[in-house]
Amino acid sequence: MSRQARRLHELPRAESLRRLARVSLGRIVFTQQALPAIRPVNHLVDNRNLIIRTHIGAAIVSAVHDDGVVVAYEADAIDPVSHLGWSVIVQGRAVLIRNPAEIARYQCLLRPWVLNQMDYVVRIHPEIITGFELVNEDGSPSA
Amino acid sequence: MSRQARRLHELPRAESLRRLARVSLGRIVFTQQALPAIRPVNHLVDNRNLIIRTHIGAAIVSAVHDDGVVVAYEADAIDPVSHLGWSVIVQGRAVLIRNPAEIARYQCLLRPWVLNQMDYVVRIHPEIITGFELVNEDGSPSA
Repeated sequence: MSRQARRLHELPRAESLRRLARVSLGRIVFTQQALPAIRPVNHLVDNRNLIIRTHIGAAIVSAVHDDGVVVAYEADAIDPVSHLGWSVIVQGRAVLIRNPAEIARYQCLLRPWVLNQMDYVVRIHPEIITGFELVNEDGSPSA
Repeated sequence: MSRQARRLHELPRAESLRRLARVSLGRIVFTQQALPAIRPVNHLVDNRNLIIRTHIGAAIVSAVHDDGVVVAYEADAIDPVSHLGWSVIVQGRAVLIRNPAEIARYQCLLRPWVLNQMDYVVRIHPEIITGFELVNEDGSPSA
């Protein structure tokens, strides 16, 4: 593997959302007691919004007021050896979903991380989407 | 795969650091313009500190003053299908390494993400370490 023959390129917004939709795991980034915090969660992309379901309710939900709070969300697929791969980062407002019908629908669509634990469904509306990919210089795809 | 037979358990601090040291990729979480931000980077564990090297200098370094800023760092190994696996989250103060000898040493030890780009070396002293693992109920290991 040549370490010379690689370059980082940006992914367009639509392609970034497609990549997010292709994977089911990511990490939500939020502020907790004035400190940066992060938790791995699973997600789906629904009507250009990110929906996450998490059992770590207290940490995230306490930060998600009715009018929402700004969070970041990151998902990636990066090869642990070559380091080739892509990462997509979303910044946007997160709100707790409270409508029982919506909750029921997303609970069917999204597998919980751990069964039988109280969990929450959160919608993130992407405002800023940053995607990039590290590829070989000849353009061959990554992980 | 039975979805019933799984449980989440905490990892002790020492084991969490060992897991971090076993992987080379993670995500630094910081505050940028008062918003939560995250970037994938590569790291090593050196004398119980996390050392990261990143080409995305401006985003992180602008937040890392001489006296440091509190950041979070997350690394994981989670199976994309079974969702079994582990995650370790560190919170602590990050400082930019400015000593040329230290920089040179870490530049040898840590592979840069992309060659020929200006990069920075940052040390994170872990203050809070949170590790957890999702395993099958019989205790068999995950990813």
